[in-house]
Formats: sequence, structure tokens, C-alpha cells
Amino acid sequence: MSHEDLRDAVYESNVELARAGLAVLTWGNASAADRQAGLMLIKPSGVAYDDLRPEDIVAVALETGETVEGELRPSSDTPTHLALYRGFPGIGGVVHSHSTCAVAWAQAGREIPCLGTTHADHFAGPVPLTRQLTSAEIDADYEGGIGTVIVERFEEGGLDPASVPAVLVPGHGPFTWGSTVQDALRNAIALEEVARMALHTFALLPDAGPIPRPLRDKHYQRKHGPDAYYGQEQV
Amino acid sequence: MSHEDLRDAVYESNVELARAGLAVLTWGNASAADRQAGLMLIKPSGVAYDDLRPEDIVAVALETGETVEGELRPSSDTPTHLALYRGFPGIGGVVHSHSTCAVAWAQAGREIPCLGTTHADHFAGPVPLTRQLTSAEIDADYEGGIGTVIVERFEEGGLDPASVPAVLVPGHGPFTWGSTVQDALRNAIALEEVARMALHTFALLPDAGPIPRPLRDKHYQRKHGPDAYYGQEQV
Amino acid sequence: MSHEDLRDAVYESNVELARAGLAVLTWGNASAADRQAGLMLIKPSGVAYDDLRPEDIVAVALETGETVEGELRPSSDTPTHLALYRGFPGIGGVVHSHSTCAVAWAQAGREIPCLGTTHADHFAGPVPLTRQLTSAEIDADYEGGIGTVIVERFEEGGLDPASVPAVLVPGHGPFTWGSTVQDALRNAIALEEVARMALHTFALLPDAGPIPRPLRDKHYQRKHGPDAYYGQEQV
Amino acid sequence: MSHEDLRDAVYESNVELARAGLAVLTWGNASAADRQAGLMLIKPSGVAYDDLRPEDIVAVALETGETVEGELRPSSDTPTHLALYRGFPGIGGVVHSHSTCAVAWAQAGREIPCLGTTHADHFAGPVPLTRQLTSAEIDADYEGGIGTVIVERFEEGGLDPASVPAVLVPGHGPFTWGSTVQDALRNAIALEEVARMALHTFALLPDAGPIPRPLRDKHYQRKHGPDAYYGQEQV
Repeated sequence: MSHEDLRDAVYESNVELARAGLAVLTWGNASAADRQAGLMLIKPSGVAYDDLRPEDIVAVALETGETVEGELRPSSDTPTHLALYRGFPGIGGVVHSHSTCAVAWAQAGREIPCLGTTHADHFAGPVPLTRQLTSAEIDADYEGGIGTVIVERFEEGGLDPASVPAVLVPGHGPFTWGSTVQDALRNAIALEEVARMALHTFALLPDAGPIPRPLRDKHYQRKHGPDAYYGQEQV
Repeated sequence: MSHEDLRDAVYESNVELARAGLAVLTWGNASAADRQAGLMLIKPSGVAYDDLRPEDIVAVALETGETVEGELRPSSDTPTHLALYRGFPGIGGVVHSHSTCAVAWAQAGREIPCLGTTHADHFAGPVPLTRQLTSAEIDADYEGGIGTVIVERFEEGGLDPASVPAVLVPGHGPFTWGSTVQDALRNAIALEEVARMALHTFALLPDAGPIPRPLRDKHYQRKHGPDAYYGQEQV
Repeated sequence: MSHEDLRDAVYESNVELARAGLAVLTWGNASAADRQAGLMLIKPSGVAYDDLRPEDIVAVALETGETVEGELRPSSDTPTHLALYRGFPGIGGVVHSHSTCAVAWAQAGREIPCLGTTHADHFAGPVPLTRQLTSAEIDADYEGGIGTVIVERFEEGGLDPASVPAVLVPGHGPFTWGSTVQDALRNAIALEEVARMALHTFALLPDAGPIPRPLRDKHYQRKHGPDAYYGQEQV
Repeated sequence: MSHEDLRDAVYESNVELARAGLAVLTWGNASAADRQAGLMLIKPSGVAYDDLRPEDIVAVALETGETVEGELRPSSDTPTHLALYRGFPGIGGVVHSHSTCAVAWAQAGREIPCLGTTHADHFAGPVPLTRQLTSAEIDADYEGGIGTVIVERFEEGGLDPASVPAVLVPGHGPFTWGSTVQDALRNAIALEEVARMALHTFALLPDAGPIPRPLRDKHYQRKHGPDAYYGQEQV
């Protein structure tokens, strides 16, 4: 994919984030990595989605975080995105949103259990919750620190970021990722819907528990496993 | 109805499923049966609703499930649809969705009681819940097995699929059907709305119970009974 | 207002009922009375809002209920509308909907208390609940009987239909009315919003109670009283 | 900014208030102050958002409240807006809405605690609640009295209207403000979303508490503090 095509994909995914109802005002941001070029393309900080243009997308160096292309300041969450690309070498896109129901779970400080096949189609297990940052971490490098506790959560929990492409930061909100920025966006949309379903499920059954493991595995594997048969064969 | 008209109806119902807010991403699918031709027409697997075209609709043989028309792979839920057409000889359309509130009831493992006339206008009694599939059934023929437990639920419960055209599969979601694919779609829309109303009703009255039987019968019969007087006379 | 203008107003109010999210499928109906001509104009039964045309609106005699204009069968709820026009001589429009949150209150069998000024701006007191119809009443004249219990509820409760232009029928849903069909529609929209706010309020405060009477009166009177100063002077 | 540009901004913000889903029917109003000219520009009373035109915006004197421009009667909430401009000399815009979730908190008589960073990005602490007006205050000068109790709440609570640009009036609803009318509108949108998130959070965790102070300060300061680095540098 050319540099320009990738920039357009980042632009489109940011616009789609607002259109899908996952972001109001200037909240949220989507990025993509071009690992060969050593670059990350991301939304500029604080720009309204209606005003955003493809040429506003900012390119920063994956290693240093320095802006290498674009007139505007990159998203203030840039250090979080960079930490995720560094900690999860297999991913190509990251989305951060303040989508309503995922934020409610984050604010309640609860992981989202795998209550159904909609969840299992996208996330092979509960959506995990990181620890809260310490005051010192907030002072030192707040946005980078968020990335650090996310990667830490996956390492310490033995979680695979490819099979659980989402996380909640307590008192804050969700981050999702994927092989591409479009994939990260689809995971953000799925996460919000799964979070909404889980909210309603707990209202009906306060001690709701996860679906049986064979059912969860079946759904995840038929879509993402080596013998996946959901969707069309990739040509 | 010509083969092409039926294909267009299946296409339209799939698109309308997304437009009505019952499906996001590639979730959900609608199908129709042409019993004389021995065919079922269904959405292709994993295709986004925005990209779907009438010619993408796949035709499979009702008896064998083999694809007889179309370039794409049919929905992964095809065996469920086929089992429903075989088990319920009177139906002509099936819709599967992951609509938010119906899924919440399925995830909570609860039937939806008939709490009001909106429900009774469409479903002559509670919306039933199937049993969970066993691990062996999940391994052997997962999607076909879902159809089997649905038909089993109606047979063992003495339920008439014509008067209760909806079911919940626990930890998964709803299936609806009807005499045509449009009818199945209307039942999917009604089910989601009824599920939402029931969620709010239980929030206000945790031990809410069904409406009196005469009221339920009145509403169902005035719309679907032999002396129905709702709607226009069919010419 | 000419007969044709009134017919257009009824058509527009029905279409707006769906557009405002208060009706899905063919649910709901709006009517207006032309008391001088002794007529009521109402939506035809079971017609989808997208297919509705102004010329489909049916005119029936206020006294006998006989169709005097139109090719289609009038709404099955016609006898309820007629009973309201007969019982409440001051009204000129009626709206019936199955809007989600108002139905939830009806299904829970609870009146909506006046929890705030949004409510008081439209309804001078709680939105009342009728009694349930008996089996005999359901058998004899179901739709007419609904109108009868509504009028009975207002008479026995000493309620003024002009200052409380809404009611809930248990296990069914809301009816609203007003001096015109547009006014009845505005009350239907306000009722659904007030019902939604009240649902959320009770989630936050399970024993929420009505606002103080002076505050309720102030809001109702500044909009509807003899010295009203809300809105523009009618020229 | 010219007088005409300010009038257009007030018009646009009122229309946007409805478009953003914060106002139905004729509820809500937005205003701006031109302090040099000693004027306030505000929506006319009881005009539907679809019918509103820029030339309908009414100008009243900040000091006396007398209409100095416009054919229509200003919003009945005009005295509240005036009291806020007088009590909070630093603000340039005010928005009043009956948005669903903020009203639910007001009707429950509860402040909205700072449960997350979405809240902290806009409001540096809980969204406060005023006291209820007395009957005497309702009789004497109802709308002016609302402004008075809002200013009183900030003075007695030692709150800074610049860092907490929102308030709830019990049994009524929210008021927000900002340096401009657009800023006040953004705060109204943020408040409704924060109120919705908080409702869901309390459903999941009935004793949810505020985020740690360092996290709250970090978010507020990175966006609004002297060393803010969110958004683009103002040129």
C-alpha cells in the first residue's frame, strides 16, 4: 500500500469512527503503522471530525515520535499509540475512543466477560482491564505510561494481542487494534456493541457468567482460526 | 414470484436488516426458500452490507446445502437456515441477527414473557429459549445443530412456529422466520423492539408478569386469526 | 381549515410519528376531528409509513363510525379514537403509539409521576393509568372499551383532559390528544421523552418523588395558563 | 466579531443543539453576550428549530433585559441567562437544554461525580447541583431566581465557573456556559455524554467513586491548563 493510500485509510477510519457513533466532538483517534518506513500516521490533536481533511493526517517516526510530515500537532495520545506499536509488533492499526458503553465498563473498573458469541466472534476471552497508573507515572509520561500498562497487562496475563485485540484503561476508556487501521476500527465497533449487550445482560441477570469454553472457541476459531470458514477466501 | 424477484427480495431484506439498526459490521443474514425449485437464497458470508449487491446472493440446494448459483461462499449460518426450512415446512423466510436487546435476553438465558400487546401482536406467547448445545454437538455440526435444537424446542414444547415465529439461542442470539423473507424481517424488527420494551419493563417492575390470556389472544387473533380485521383485505 | 388541509395535517402527523422514532413497522396512528362536519380523519389500518399517501387517509362519521371517504379500511383502533372524541368534547386530535419507554411504563402498570419541569411543561400532574379491561369487555367491543376506560379514568379521577393530555393503558401503551392533531403529536413526543427521563431517574433514585407543587404549577401555567408567557403571542 | 456574525453563531448553535439530539420540540436555548455593546443575543421563545431563521434571534440589553432588536419575544429563560452573564463576568455564551441523561441526574437530585477522564477533559470536578428554589422565589422571579441560585452555588462552594462550566438545577435540567456560545454548546454535548456514561457506570457499580485527583488534574490541565498540549496552538 502506498504512503498516500495508507494516509487516506487513516483519514477514512477517523471519519468513520465519528460516523459510527463512537466519538463526539474531537474525542478519539485512529492510527496506522508503516513499519517498513518506520512511520505512524495519526489524527491531528483536537480537530473536529467534520473539519478533518486527508492532508491533516500527521506522520511521526515510530522510534522517536518526532513529526516527519504534516503541519499540525499529532494527537495528544500519540505516545500511547507508539507504545502499542512497539509492544505489539504484529499490529498495523490502533483506535482509541470514548464510546459510551465501553467507557462505562472502564469507569466501573470491570473487565467485560465473554457473555456470548458476538463477543467470541471478535475477542477470544474477556476484554481485560489494565491497572491504574501511579501518580508518579502520570507525572512522568502520562500517555506513554498508558501504553506501557497495556503491554504489561498482556505480558503478565499471558494474553495474545492478536486474539484479544482490545483493552480497557480504568477510569478512561478502550483501546483496540488490529492488523490494519480498518481492522482496529471494526474491533472498536464490535467492542462498543459487546459492551452495550453486556450492560443489558447484567441488568437482566446480575450474576451472568461467560459462555462455555467450547462455544467460545468454536466462534473465535471459525472466524480467525487456521481452518476459518467465515467470510470469503482471501485471494 | 420469479427467481430474480426472490433474489432481489433477499438482497433488500439483508440491506434493510442493517438499515433498521439490527446488524452492524457483517453480522446477521436473511434468506428465502423457493420450495418448488428446491432452493434457498442467502447472504454470502462476511460481506459488508454496504458492499452487498443483488448478484452476490447465493443459491444453495434445500436438500443437500450445495451451492448451485453464485460466486461467493454462502453465510456460515447456512446449515441453521436449512434445518429451519426442513423442520418448519410452512415457512418461506428466515432472519438471524445479533440485535442488541434480543441478544441480551439470549445471553441472560431468559425467555421473553409476553408483557404487552406489542408482543402479542407478533408472537402468541413467550419467545422461547432453546437448550445449549453440548460440546459434542458443537464439534460435530455446530450450525446445523443450532437448527436442530430450535426445531426440537418447538416440538417438545408443543409450539407452533407459525404463531411464535421467533426463538432465542442461549449465549448467542435470535432467529425469526415467516411466510416470506420480508415477513421474517418484520418479525426480527418486532422482536428487537419487544426485547427492548421488556428490558425497560423489568427495570421498573422486577417481577413483571405476562398480560392476561384474553388480552393476548385478542391482539394476536385480530391480526393473524381467521377473523383478523387488522390491515387491509388481501386482494 | 379546509377538509383537504385537515387530511394533509393527518397524513403529515402520521408520517412524523414514524420519523420521530415513535412508531416502527405499521404501529401507531394519528387522527383529527372535524366536529362541524361530524367527521374523523384517520390512518388506514396496517399500512407502512413509507407507503402512506395523503389520499389514503380515511374519513369516518364521528357518530356512527361508518367510513364516508377513502378506499381503505380505517385503523383498527378507530373505535378508541371515536370514544375519545365523544368523551372529551374539547379535543381535536388523537395519537396512539407503541413508543418504547411509554410502553414500558404501561407494561409495568405504573403511572408516570411528575418528576421534573419537562413533564410539568406538558402534563399538569402524573400521566394516569387506566384499569385493565375485563374479559367480557375485551370480547364485546375491545377497541371501543379502551376509549371507555380512558374516559372513565378521567371522570372518576376528576382529571381534566385539557391539562393532562395523555394516558397509559396497562399492558398496552400510550394515547395522547390535543386541540389539533399536531398538538396531539407534540404531546406524544413529549410523553416518550418524559417516560425515558423517568426511567433513568428511577435507576438513579429508586424512590424518586414528584417535584414540589409550586414548581409544577409554575411550569404548566407559564406555558398553558391564562397569563402564559412562553412562546409567541397568537396573532 | 461583528454583530451579524455573533447573531449567526447564536442561530447556528441553537440549530446544532437540536441536531445533536439535545433538544426536541422547542425545548432548550443558546445565547451569546456582546459585552462591549451591552447586549445578549438569544433564541426566541417557543419557536421550533426547523422554523428558526437567523433574523429571529432576539437582542436584549444585558443590564435591563429589554428587547433592543427583533420582532419576537425572547426565550422565557432570558432572565436566567442574564443572571449568569452578570454573575460570571468571564463567560460569553450560555446553553440550556433538557437533554435526557443530564435531566435524569437533575430529577434524581444528584451531582454527577467525576468518574472518568471524559468528564475531567471538560469539568474539573463534579457537576454541581443547586438548591431548589423556595415557593416565594418561584412566585417573585422564577427564571431570574434560577440564575441566582446557580451563581450562589458557585460562590458558596468556592467553584470557578471557568473550570466547571456546567450545573444542574434539581427537578429541572442542565445549564452550561463557556467563553463563546460554541464553547457552551460543546460543554452541553459533553455534559450529556458524561451523564449517560455515569448512568451506565452506576448500573454496573452502584458505589462508583471519582477517579484519583492526579488523573483528573492531568486531563483537565492537559486540555485547559497554562501548559495545555491538547489541540492546536491558537494562532
